[in-house]
Amino acid sequence: MSIPSMNVRDERDDRDNRDVVICECFARDGLQHEPAVVGVEQKVRLIDAFAQAGFARVEATSYSNPAVVPQFADASAVLEALPRRAGVHYKATCANVRAVERAVADAEAGFGANEISLLVSASESHSQKNLRRTRAQQWENIAEMAQCAGERFRVVGTISVAFGCPFEGDVPAAEVVRDVERYLSHGVRLISLGDTTGMATPRSVAALAGQLARECPEAVLIGHFHDSRGTALVNCLAAYEAGVRWFDASFGGVGGHPAKVQYGQGYTGNACTEDLVSLFESMGVRTGLDLDRMMDCARECETVLGRSLLGRVTRSGLHPRARSRAVREAVVR
Amino acid sequence: MSIPSMNVRDERDDRDNRDVVICECFARDGLQHEPAVVGVEQKVRLIDAFAQAGFARVEATSYSNPAVVPQFADASAVLEALPRRAGVHYKATCANVRAVERAVADAEAGFGANEISLLVSASESHSQKNLRRTRAQQWENIAEMAQCAGERFRVVGTISVAFGCPFEGDVPAAEVVRDVERYLSHGVRLISLGDTTGMATPRSVAALAGQLARECPEAVLIGHFHDSRGTALVNCLAAYEAGVRWFDASFGGVGGHPAKVQYGQGYTGNACTEDLVSLFESMGVRTGLDLDRMMDCARECETVLGRSLLGRVTRSGLHPRARSRAVREAVVR
Repeated sequence: MSIPSMNVRDERDDRDNRDVVICECFARDGLQHEPAVVGVEQKVRLIDAFAQAGFARVEATSYSNPAVVPQFADASAVLEALPRRAGVHYKATCANVRAVERAVADAEAGFGANEISLLVSASESHSQKNLRRTRAQQWENIAEMAQCAGERFRVVGTISVAFGCPFEGDVPAAEVVRDVERYLSHGVRLISLGDTTGMATPRSVAALAGQLARECPEAVLIGHFHDSRGTALVNCLAAYEAGVRWFDASFGGVGGHPAKVQYGQGYTGNACTEDLVSLFESMGVRTGLDLDRMMDCARECETVLGRSLLGRVTRSGLHPRARSRAVREAVVR
Repeated sequence: MSIPSMNVRDERDDRDNRDVVICECFARDGLQHEPAVVGVEQKVRLIDAFAQAGFARVEATSYSNPAVVPQFADASAVLEALPRRAGVHYKATCANVRAVERAVADAEAGFGANEISLLVSASESHSQKNLRRTRAQQWENIAEMAQCAGERFRVVGTISVAFGCPFEGDVPAAEVVRDVERYLSHGVRLISLGDTTGMATPRSVAALAGQLARECPEAVLIGHFHDSRGTALVNCLAAYEAGVRWFDASFGGVGGHPAKVQYGQGYTGNACTEDLVSLFESMGVRTGLDLDRMMDCARECETVLGRSLLGRVTRSGLHPRARSRAVREAVVR
């Protein structure tokens, strides 16, 4: 599949100078359930700082219904004001056909996202509660969305509750495999496996990633782990050991599924970018980031939200092995 | 080595009904740097609740100098008031010979701890800053302490900065091996490897645990990981995969090394008991705990300190796989 427009690259090129590709999700997934409205200018400054720190993928905004998610009523305004950096994919999430139409319109106006994500749930109950559609209906939608998107964007296929559903419990791996195959049939190779309510375990992660590597080798898996039970990093590492090289994370661990609102559960949160980066770099796994700038970003996110977030290394500093790389590179610059 | 008194058991018996043995450290390591003084009655109630929840090891107090650590001026009073449960080791930490003498006096009065811990640092700088003694001096102390303790207690040998020193950086594994051998020569088989400032990585944990298993097979290793960089659970799991079956943890992740005070670093914290238990149980690794009571304990620790602590599962609930075991067992009871 050729991807001609908007500096869209083959996802394999994301790894030119790094072992793992972390998508920084603060500006969308992070902010989605924050009560404070963050202005266009601040969002643009943050997203550009993320790109300058070296993130090859930044989740920039969502083409949500502004009446439902006022935080992203400014989706087009943010993308229009956003300077673009070479080699960076700016992602916009799209929940339905209308969203993709807006993404296409902005792309045709010359300032759209160069990556969009589509969304299905691996369980019937979660699909109906979260998307208000059956799985079959959502797959019809996905077909229409993929067709509408054409080849303007790099497309990410997200699968919610891939490691377990809060309503149905265990989700059969065969369902997830089928969803991956469906995405592939629409030309979507980048597949984000969502641990929506923190039900993944290191063993289920290894099992699912292993099965997908065998049965759908052309899929490029993204690990999207929530920290609902403190296991985001444990599961990222299990995914890495199983061969996954793309990850979603958010500065300060902000965001994640609105568990409290939807399921009466109290805590959620994404994998925390700065802690995940420190972990990887301490193990010699290269993230491709400018670590000093990355830490500046983590602190800036705290400033924007006006509170201490959940990152540990914003308090304790990067792991010394990561820090020594940052120092070495600063000397070289 | 026969251990005749105070219901001291061979450490292998701790695993009668569980795959891993978690020592609950809230009452000592957790409270050590809390500004609020917790009274004797509250401490006794907490420690007994931990024992009733099924912890086979509970760190109960410290024979510290009351002028330096007022939080444990009540060490003897706590131990005297504490009801004892069969099969439970109540640990008191001992930093010097005077502390062991107090432990012996309480034991002879019939209410002492049945487990004590001794402490060395794996690096010279940390030994001098934390213990105000060279490593050689501290090993002379340890010899005297071990002799003074005799066979009254089960003795734990703790090694600080086993995975890296904030002053010296990497700590040679050979130094840690030598410390383990020295403890063994004093009849101390239970060895706690302390990741004092969060410098362990899953790889260094696997390497050190593997080397010790080969070179000191009679040692029983305890993983003591701080969450300074968000990696406590990652490292516990790496240790488990490398064969370690004993762990230290604290409800709410409270405690850990006073990094802020001593090293100008901002965050510390122990491995969080309730999150670690949820992780292990979700993987089918049995902790031997009554999970409902364990969760009650986690909430009670928040009540005692008057604030929300860092446990994720106190907000989101145990992992469903762990929860279903709790439900099954409640039905049986």
